Amino acid sequence: MGLLKEFDQKDLAMVGQELYRFAEALYPICRSITGDGIRRTLAMIQNRVPLQTFEVPTGTPVFDWTVPKEWNVRDAYIKDKSGKRVVDFQNSNLHVLNYSTPVRATMPLSELKPHLFTITANPEWIPYQTSYYKEDWGFCLSHNQMLALEDGEYEVCIDSTLQDGHLTYGECFLPGRSADEVLISCHACHPSLANDNLSGLTVAAFLAHFLSGQDLHYSYRFLFIPGTIGAITWLARNQASAALIRHGLVLTCIGDAGPFHYKKSRRGNAEIDRAVSHVLTHYSESPEFLEFSPYGYDERQYCSPGFNLAVGCLMRSVWGSFPEYHTSADNLEFIHPARLAESLRICAAILDVLENNRRYRNLNPYCEPQLGKRGLYRYTGGGAIREELNALLWVLNLSDGEHSLLDIAERSHVRFSTIQHAAELLCQSGLLSTRGFDSKHRSFSPNWFVKLHLHDLL
Amino acid sequence: MGLLKEFDQKDLAMVGQELYRFAEALYPICRSITGDGIRRTLAMIQNRVPLQTFEVPTGTPVFDWTVPKEWNVRDAYIKDKSGKRVVDFQNSNLHVLNYSTPVRATMPLSELKPHLFTITANPEWIPYQTSYYKEDWGFCLSHNQMLALEDGEYEVCIDSTLQDGHLTYGECFLPGRSADEVLISCHACHPSLANDNLSGLTVAAFLAHFLSGQDLHYSYRFLFIPGTIGAITWLARNQASAALIRHGLVLTCIGDAGPFHYKKSRRGNAEIDRAVSHVLTHYSESPEFLEFSPYGYDERQYCSPGFNLAVGCLMRSVWGSFPEYHTSADNLEFIHPARLAESLRICAAILDVLENNRRYRNLNPYCEPQLGKRGLYRYTGGGAIREELNALLWVLNLSDGEHSLLDIAERSHVRFSTIQHAAELLCQSGLLSTRGFDSKHRSFSPNWFVKLHLHDLL
Amino acid sequence: MGLLKEFDQKDLAMVGQELYRFAEALYPICRSITGDGIRRTLAMIQNRVPLQTFEVPTGTPVFDWTVPKEWNVRDAYIKDKSGKRVVDFQNSNLHVLNYSTPVRATMPLSELKPHLFTITANPEWIPYQTSYYKEDWGFCLSHNQMLALEDGEYEVCIDSTLQDGHLTYGECFLPGRSADEVLISCHACHPSLANDNLSGLTVAAFLAHFLSGQDLHYSYRFLFIPGTIGAITWLARNQASAALIRHGLVLTCIGDAGPFHYKKSRRGNAEIDRAVSHVLTHYSESPEFLEFSPYGYDERQYCSPGFNLAVGCLMRSVWGSFPEYHTSADNLEFIHPARLAESLRICAAILDVLENNRRYRNLNPYCEPQLGKRGLYRYTGGGAIREELNALLWVLNLSDGEHSLLDIAERSHVRFSTIQHAAELLCQSGLLSTRGFDSKHRSFSPNWFVKLHLHDLL
Repeated sequence: MGLLKEFDQKDLAMVGQELYRFAEALYPICRSITGDGIRRTLAMIQNRVPLQTFEVPTGTPVFDWTVPKEWNVRDAYIKDKSGKRVVDFQNSNLHVLNYSTPVRATMPLSELKPHLFTITANPEWIPYQTSYYKEDWGFCLSHNQMLALEDGEYEVCIDSTLQDGHLTYGECFLPGRSADEVLISCHACHPSLANDNLSGLTVAAFLAHFLSGQDLHYSYRFLFIPGTIGAITWLARNQASAALIRHGLVLTCIGDAGPFHYKKSRRGNAEIDRAVSHVLTHYSESPEFLEFSPYGYDERQYCSPGFNLAVGCLMRSVWGSFPEYHTSADNLEFIHPARLAESLRICAAILDVLENNRRYRNLNPYCEPQLGKRGLYRYTGGGAIREELNALLWVLNLSDGEHSLLDIAERSHVRFSTIQHAAELLCQSGLLSTRGFDSKHRSFSPNWFVKLHLHDLL
Repeated sequence: MGLLKEFDQKDLAMVGQELYRFAEALYPICRSITGDGIRRTLAMIQNRVPLQTFEVPTGTPVFDWTVPKEWNVRDAYIKDKSGKRVVDFQNSNLHVLNYSTPVRATMPLSELKPHLFTITANPEWIPYQTSYYKEDWGFCLSHNQMLALEDGEYEVCIDSTLQDGHLTYGECFLPGRSADEVLISCHACHPSLANDNLSGLTVAAFLAHFLSGQDLHYSYRFLFIPGTIGAITWLARNQASAALIRHGLVLTCIGDAGPFHYKKSRRGNAEIDRAVSHVLTHYSESPEFLEFSPYGYDERQYCSPGFNLAVGCLMRSVWGSFPEYHTSADNLEFIHPARLAESLRICAAILDVLENNRRYRNLNPYCEPQLGKRGLYRYTGGGAIREELNALLWVLNLSDGEHSLLDIAERSHVRFSTIQHAAELLCQSGLLSTRGFDSKHRSFSPNWFVKLHLHDLL
Repeated sequence: MGLLKEFDQKDLAMVGQELYRFAEALYPICRSITGDGIRRTLAMIQNRVPLQTFEVPTGTPVFDWTVPKEWNVRDAYIKDKSGKRVVDFQNSNLHVLNYSTPVRATMPLSELKPHLFTITANPEWIPYQTSYYKEDWGFCLSHNQMLALEDGEYEVCIDSTLQDGHLTYGECFLPGRSADEVLISCHACHPSLANDNLSGLTVAAFLAHFLSGQDLHYSYRFLFIPGTIGAITWLARNQASAALIRHGLVLTCIGDAGPFHYKKSRRGNAEIDRAVSHVLTHYSESPEFLEFSPYGYDERQYCSPGFNLAVGCLMRSVWGSFPEYHTSADNLEFIHPARLAESLRICAAILDVLENNRRYRNLNPYCEPQLGKRGLYRYTGGGAIREELNALLWVLNLSDGEHSLLDIAERSHVRFSTIQHAAELLCQSGLLSTRGFDSKHRSFSPNWFVKLHLHDLL
């Protein structure tokens, strides 16, 4: 059975609730690109899927970069002279500038101010700021909170550590019949932000769980990694085997209410680009397609010129384009059970295309075969042609050893699942075959057509 | 002289009247995919053009199909208890379900009803229905006729035979200088339906007659065949020689008042596709172009993957898209003399392009030749450039051994006939040549340009 | 420093005044395709740039043409019976039909009239007419002037000579590091017409002057020639070396107030076509792009099929499309200092692209390099990405030995100058290199990428 059909046997509303509950559980953790936050996150994913975790020591060179010191934070606050916490890490882990060095001091407001970050446009929201590669400390707070700060002395505390340790990431590998791999990558380094991070993590974890029970053509590799440095570290440690990656997706921002956006791989017309384009066009409303650009998420690294992997990025709303992005408003209310579930279903539909995108041979390539005598010509009359008959005729017409099922779906504007079903019916009727099919390259020898039918001509 | 110029010496109104009269004469015959109806039809075409007819015995295997039994019908009716024919084949041959097995019985209305076919949307029209491959009997009648039937006993008679015999088709072959062929195919199996069948038959017959007096580059093969099974039978009996077909058209539904529609061949950009596109764009109003699909008329068979011939389908209104399709309303009032004549002219213009689509060599490829001293630079001054001069310059500029006249017409947006005339003028002036022209492949050796002009460079 | 940056250090208003003054000085001269008018014009250009002039004798065969007789004119008039000059060459050199044979006669108006040329649509304007290849004489005058002529005898004098002599043209060659050439061609054969002729001449002369002080990759060849016969003569005398021309522009009608129009070369997508398209799109308002046609200026000859050079035509208003074209209204008021200066700047920007359109190698092609540690990651936060960082990432991503900077500018929709600046910054940081760069073909050996990075994989 196809992955999508299998998926569609589930209760989508219930799937949405499960996805949401998992995101809820992950939400409070203060993640960063290193440290215990990401370790705890990976442990929670490990409860669902077989995840191998890796610890890479601080100072390890990874291409042009170096694995940074490990950061952990326990508490942080600004106390006013009455001893009241006016900014409190316990209320929101966004309050601390991510990767802040430890600080304990008392200082006047004027001295504190250069260390405070706010958003004037949305004065109730706390911004999310980081300083991974420049040692600094600071607090993020709502603009209104800052305006309320009176002149005077403040006690400032960031109870953090920044010292030699490890960079942690998780990898879930699901072996398929082929050594060729599909990569699903998501970053797991953002603190309490729901759409930008948790939506991707959650959908990826559930997708891995869903696939783990299936008979798969491809092998699947799921990466749960810190953004940028994590992808670079993984690629540096797996440079040669990265060549096995035939198709890939970065998943991010896929829990909100926006329509799907797909950013194409650097290649622009790779099979993954075409598969996503087909699926979003036929299975979602008003999808938009973005050309590749070298800015964004970890597709930047996978699509760097030395690798140039066929990896695109699947989103709903696009990072940086919605006001809630990288603020406290990207919270659990910003993502929705039904949206998470639909995103998971779209992923299943995309993988279904990749898994089943074969080339078949029409064993009867001269004229149409007589479908009627095989019970396949169920024409209802009038001018209309039933979708099923249409799909049968398209598959017969284009199964010449050159066109894949995705090629046929694209040219016919018929859904891949309908085309695939037609191919199965035709196989059962002995009209179509995958005989001579090269499972590694998923194509036929260019001579099969000539060989098979030459005798007919003689 | 070109085919179009030759054609345009005729009185188009008179041509239209002749076409229409021929369709009128063919209209009453009860045709089917086998039997005397198609034989009589072919005999009438034979009066106009040299037609060879073929009789293929019932049971002959043709690819995945088998030639069916031969069907003939003499009479059919439903009589009410007063003995009055309430449905009468003598009034319209559409009344009998085409390929009905014989029946003689008396039965109550309730038993008869499952054998009656009507169209509720157009209650005055009789539908056209067939049952070629499933033995059955039935009557087609207007919905109002059916509503008027009172309960009671009816005498039912279909005086038909369905037995071993032959499938009949006609072929008109007009030899040209080249063994390469142009195929014109139309189905001849519909009973009293004017646009869907007779318009195509009629235009094809007159086109064959028109071409038979001409000096032709290509050989032309006109097929007058039963739909689907006829094309399959012809291809099965001519599998090897089908490879000689370089260009082809299926003609159907070209007598009504609609604008031209052209459905492209499976190849999509074959020379026939480009020729038709050019001609319809420049010589007709609001033409529309449809991508190939494996559903429709006999282009389905010619474009099956084992053949993949460059055969498109020329129509006015598209089958299934107009309410009169396959009903008694597709009658002689639905087609028009002027439309038939214009369709014939468009066919002549298309063949004119194919016949004359040569590649020429500019014998003076370095800079423009001095047209003035040859009386060819008749520039009227002002900013405008005369169409003729424009065509001369385009032909000179692109006659580099790579571009055909159709390529030049497409790039310049100038009518093919104007481009062709310019090429003739330039040949007469010694500026252009077809010397070295490979009449089989209609192209030059890639080296001619180098050979011809290398000495100029040395 | 880049050509555009260099150019932008000038005071554009002052440049415009200089250009205009030069056009003003050239305006009164009565030029034709041969004779002293073009000689004086070339002498004035010679005062600004090192110009070699060539004299080709009458009767010299040049491809299909022959160098014509040399024409000179000293005076011409029509006197009425009172002896008053009613049409006077001294007032406007447009009054004489260019290439008029000498005439001295007295004749009635009725006999004179066939030799008079006017424009009825603009009755105050004198048309510009020529008769190079058919011996004739005549006068051009405003339609109102002609209407004012009373019946009676007129004294007619054209004090011209048409005899064996020479065709004169000028060539300014600026050697660059490469033998590959950029051709800039303009016609210098029109009398007192400002936009159609002087604007092109003037911008070309100043462009040559500007380039002569620069360190150039390409060699530059500027041609100041009579239209058509001049281009044909030059190509006939330089047939073999024309193959060195890699890119070229015909400059004409670039002093008026219209938006830029670029007519593409016959190749349609040559580097010059892409460079002009990029520059006009990013540096000018509402440019328009015209497909190649074999009618127009000397690109007709450069793009004839035997040469097929990558030469386009840069204009503002298109010849023949504005009413002032080839009339006395194409005068010094029709062109503007600021427009001439902008046209010159656009030319500098186009050549800047050609000069700098290199391919670079990303020396760090696996993942992004860490820009931050090199002070290149000046990210201002928020969702926006600074143009400079964007350009750096694009250059890194596409510098794979296949993409040129123009390829990168086109794909990223970032200005070429920004892309080029990013490439320079990256070179300075040691992240990019032109090492292995083949300066002749401006590309890398296809193996460099493999060679450079194979050890990383092992």
